[in-house]
Amino acid sequence: MEMEKRLEVISELAQKTESKIVLIVFDGLGDIPIAEFDGKTPLESAKKPNMTSLARSSSLGLMDPIAPGITPGSGPGHLGIFGYDPLKNEIGRGLIEGLGIGFEFTEEDVAARFNFATMDSSGAIIDRRAGRIESNEAALLCGAIQEKIKEIDGAKVFVRHVKEHRGVVVFRKKGIGGNLPDTDPQKTGIPQLEPIPLDEKSKPTAEITKKFIYQVNAILSGRNYANTLLLRGFSSNIELPSFERLYKLKPCAIATYPMYKGLAKLAGMRVVQGCNTLEEEAKALEENWENFDFFFVHIKKTDSAGEDGNWDAKKKVIEEGDRTIVSTALKKKPEVICITADHSTPCKLKSHSWHPVPVLIHSPASIPSDESNIDFSERQCARGTLGRFNALDLMPLLLSNAGKLAKFGA
Amino acid sequence: MEMEKRLEVISELAQKTESKIVLIVFDGLGDIPIAEFDGKTPLESAKKPNMTSLARSSSLGLMDPIAPGITPGSGPGHLGIFGYDPLKNEIGRGLIEGLGIGFEFTEEDVAARFNFATMDSSGAIIDRRAGRIESNEAALLCGAIQEKIKEIDGAKVFVRHVKEHRGVVVFRKKGIGGNLPDTDPQKTGIPQLEPIPLDEKSKPTAEITKKFIYQVNAILSGRNYANTLLLRGFSSNIELPSFERLYKLKPCAIATYPMYKGLAKLAGMRVVQGCNTLEEEAKALEENWENFDFFFVHIKKTDSAGEDGNWDAKKKVIEEGDRTIVSTALKKKPEVICITADHSTPCKLKSHSWHPVPVLIHSPASIPSDESNIDFSERQCARGTLGRFNALDLMPLLLSNAGKLAKFGA
Repeated sequence: MEMEKRLEVISELAQKTESKIVLIVFDGLGDIPIAEFDGKTPLESAKKPNMTSLARSSSLGLMDPIAPGITPGSGPGHLGIFGYDPLKNEIGRGLIEGLGIGFEFTEEDVAARFNFATMDSSGAIIDRRAGRIESNEAALLCGAIQEKIKEIDGAKVFVRHVKEHRGVVVFRKKGIGGNLPDTDPQKTGIPQLEPIPLDEKSKPTAEITKKFIYQVNAILSGRNYANTLLLRGFSSNIELPSFERLYKLKPCAIATYPMYKGLAKLAGMRVVQGCNTLEEEAKALEENWENFDFFFVHIKKTDSAGEDGNWDAKKKVIEEGDRTIVSTALKKKPEVICITADHSTPCKLKSHSWHPVPVLIHSPASIPSDESNIDFSERQCARGTLGRFNALDLMPLLLSNAGKLAKFGA
Repeated sequence: MEMEKRLEVISELAQKTESKIVLIVFDGLGDIPIAEFDGKTPLESAKKPNMTSLARSSSLGLMDPIAPGITPGSGPGHLGIFGYDPLKNEIGRGLIEGLGIGFEFTEEDVAARFNFATMDSSGAIIDRRAGRIESNEAALLCGAIQEKIKEIDGAKVFVRHVKEHRGVVVFRKKGIGGNLPDTDPQKTGIPQLEPIPLDEKSKPTAEITKKFIYQVNAILSGRNYANTLLLRGFSSNIELPSFERLYKLKPCAIATYPMYKGLAKLAGMRVVQGCNTLEEEAKALEENWENFDFFFVHIKKTDSAGEDGNWDAKKKVIEEGDRTIVSTALKKKPEVICITADHSTPCKLKSHSWHPVPVLIHSPASIPSDESNIDFSERQCARGTLGRFNALDLMPLLLSNAGKLAKFGA
């Protein structure tokens, strides 16, 4: 099916109503069973009374964030959930990282992530992360660079620290392109790579980048570690139609990590600031309840635990999410509660994976299973009444379940 | 996958054989469980020995008539089942309404629905439905208008009453377009809107429409209510490749309601006339058996019962359909029997819905479930061996099951 046409149709059918939708995303929730943990996944094993009770009166299913077999990054994973085709709207890492720290992009911006790194006197990279220097030190270095580099070839330059050895640089100049390969060589013992432009528009950006690296190296030249930086994920700003325009929703985003706040902002969501814990997120949901009709609540640490291969920690995050956010959502009695993930992060693989994610949709029109002892889990969702669907179908399903989507045709 | 290319491939692979296919569509069959009826859907609860027996030797699955989350109107719902992409072949309301009363369209027709309405002496609309005048009176007005208006600017004009204050007007002239906005202002206190053409071909139609409204106003000018009409849903006749051409089938349609006969006619099916009951439809299936290799049998009243929220009535229609049409189909032993729906009409919602519909395909090549006590129901179909698929995949599945589709590639 041609997705643009479908989105157009969805947008025409969407109508404003009083009903509310809560979309809870446990980042990297999906997992695979491990023999040493009783052959279960963290989700299967977690004590999650609210989700279990919901599951018995909800429709369950499996969702492919991008397509079967494709492992999503965090950006594409969320784009799909929000209804923007991730294969047609590629978000570079530079942009995502910048959104993550709340950088206010304009149309003229090209962003890239960088790592502080260490090179030897021959210019060969000997540590791609500069010993993972601490945030304080890296922030000072960023300040020093920004102080000395404000403009190159007519492009404004913004240098921002992100976390530990990581930062973002933004070049702002009308008409410059972001189609450049990484300068990070991905291994040590060789110099960083030249920024070769991949199209005409990116030629000036390549020049700016070369000069930027040269000047940075000069500024950091007295140091014997963290004396250069490696650039990755060049990207131009992308514009997405807002949730308000597409779906006639007034959306609110609740998240602890900057990147997810940034992704939500791309979709035109109002982002609640200042949440650092699940409890604070639950409180934000409660406090903002009256002012919005769509809530995106993001739970980060299931993914982090999966990446660490920490099955127990992942299970615990699920249990905490159930106790805080899911219970608050239930208490507010919205027409629709959806619990799902942006991708799987199986503990066994210690990385994102292609496995479809479990989905629970609770509404007055949901179709619960006719099997007994149903729970919210990867394997029970595989037999659910929603079947298996693509993430691009999620928003239409949520809108329909909330009575917000008119009939198509007569 | 791009659907046009797919349809082209299907068409190339389709081959004429002796085998027969019976497609039984229970309109609005899909439902959701209701607690007060033992947590069951009408289909789950119905005593339907023929379907139950079929289910145990059939492939079961769920089908999205358009796409997950999209609620189909009757027109798009049937287009999908027949294999025509409903997102690419939009049928306007004027056409559907005309098909619904059995109007015989030609390629040269533009149709629009109309409401009788009341305007004041300044021309402002004060009642968009003329007090919902009764059918008798509206039919008389339609007769009077048709009597006086037979042709405008070389276009033949057909005025037909539908029900209560509603009717259809058809302008027949070679080359005229139907791309016009509604003249219904959707609110009172202002005059009706000008029919502004949205493309070159619709310019003459706009002129004809203006003159039509002017003449109608003159005819009704003595009245203090129902003294004008408002036009909506302009649409040209759409041309679909016929079943014969696409699938090499000789198709027969058996239905009681004009709209479904009209939709079948759009697909080039031969429509049996004079069926008013399920018994008559079953008899028509038997009598026409030798002359066709594809039978579309439409059962209307599951949908009507769903729209009324009448769970018992819906269950009863399913039981009657089993006793009459399904039993007749079984008796004739076609290679393929398929039982499905054009959309769901849950009693709880009293309207069409987006829920996928249950599908049963019985053939010598079907793969029955390995679970015990299998029956034909929404929830058992969710676990069926067909999985969940789009309606555009139904015709290829039926053709293959009937041995009518050659291998693609070597």
